[in-house]
Amino acid sequence: MVNISLRRFVNRLGHSFTDPALLEQALTHRSFGSTNNERLEFLGDAVLGMVVSEMLYRHFPAASEGDLSRLRSVLVKGEALAKMARAIDLGDQLRLGSGELKSGGFRRDSILAGAYEAVIGAVLLDAGFDTCRECLVSWFQPLIEGLSLGDEHKDPKSLLQEYLQGKGAALPDYKLLNVSGEGHAQHFEVQCCLAGLSTDYRGAASSRRKAEQAAATVALNELKIQSNISGKGR
Amino acid sequence: MVNISLRRFVNRLGHSFTDPALLEQALTHRSFGSTNNERLEFLGDAVLGMVVSEMLYRHFPAASEGDLSRLRSVLVKGEALAKMARAIDLGDQLRLGSGELKSGGFRRDSILAGAYEAVIGAVLLDAGFDTCRECLVSWFQPLIEGLSLGDEHKDPKSLLQEYLQGKGAALPDYKLLNVSGEGHAQHFEVQCCLAGLSTDYRGAASSRRKAEQAAATVALNELKIQSNISGKGR
Repeated sequence: MVNISLRRFVNRLGHSFTDPALLEQALTHRSFGSTNNERLEFLGDAVLGMVVSEMLYRHFPAASEGDLSRLRSVLVKGEALAKMARAIDLGDQLRLGSGELKSGGFRRDSILAGAYEAVIGAVLLDAGFDTCRECLVSWFQPLIEGLSLGDEHKDPKSLLQEYLQGKGAALPDYKLLNVSGEGHAQHFEVQCCLAGLSTDYRGAASSRRKAEQAAATVALNELKIQSNISGKGR
Repeated sequence: MVNISLRRFVNRLGHSFTDPALLEQALTHRSFGSTNNERLEFLGDAVLGMVVSEMLYRHFPAASEGDLSRLRSVLVKGEALAKMARAIDLGDQLRLGSGELKSGGFRRDSILAGAYEAVIGAVLLDAGFDTCRECLVSWFQPLIEGLSLGDEHKDPKSLLQEYLQGKGAALPDYKLLNVSGEGHAQHFEVQCCLAGLSTDYRGAASSRRKAEQAAATVALNELKIQSNISGKGR
């Protein structure tokens, strides 16, 4: 199993395994056989959630629980993890069954994200929590530092608009999806659509303006993360 | 804030805080004021999920990722955490706003479970991950040891039936909720109903029998946990 491509992958990963069989298992999709990465994915997903939660908790001392949850979901969603997996060429190391191999499974978000989580679980078992946390901090700290909860002087909608203008992209479009409740207990759900992107950035709050700001915050953070991860790629 | 009742609570909890202000915050519901336990709850929920996942991973080396997820959700669901909170009289220590106080908020599952998670987050910040994990292991190991993934010689439906008969309770009733897919790709969703209990134990699998077994496993584990937690109470 030791080859140049794998060695390069381990270098990019930043953790050298004491037990290489753990890494091999983490890179083995269930289509390959009964010993695969599904249990490690379960473990890695939980460690990732915990470490990212703690990092966000410390990095944003004034953020509400709702803001922290939103930021976490942007960081650990499958699409983001798949991008991070691509940045270290994880797809090249995957062991897939012949069907998945033929249909290009090594390019699929869900398979890449699952293997990425499995690798995190494998690092935990191989080296313990402290080392696993160090790895996760080195991978996620740059992304977390790029996040914002809005600016003191500018609202998230203006910040998103400036960001998009800086990239020469079209301005966002806000759609009111739903209003429920009455009087002071009204609840607005809003969608922020960006030209050329199919992803759905949503926000909900007690006023339409606040819901739009929440959706803009999600969109802006997501764009920054995507751009940060892509920047790190090959 | 130091009183006999609080001292007894800390003894039951099994962790003596270096920074008592963290414990105070963990026990402060948002109805009490702007400095409350919501952020700590976010943190504690993530640590709890991670430690329980790791414990299950190690305790059930042959369990599938789906089994592990089901067991975890039984252990960390609000109802179970509220029971654990009651077993250490956490409700007596809660700081609630006057409205919640009048309406009996200290008895409500969601408030108790949230504060229990916040206390876990507070232990993490107060003493670090290793100490927090030790606490969680001491609280959850007895529950995990009572769990089973079925018996080699008996299927989960028989085990559930025997358990209920041992308690003098009525036999379970299985309802087919949904069938989707065709031929070999059929997917059955089944509900296991127990007399006098409103909770919904569900299972899904590629055959009706397997789905019933999955639902029976969830129900049995849940009953054992509830009975174990109640047994530990005052």
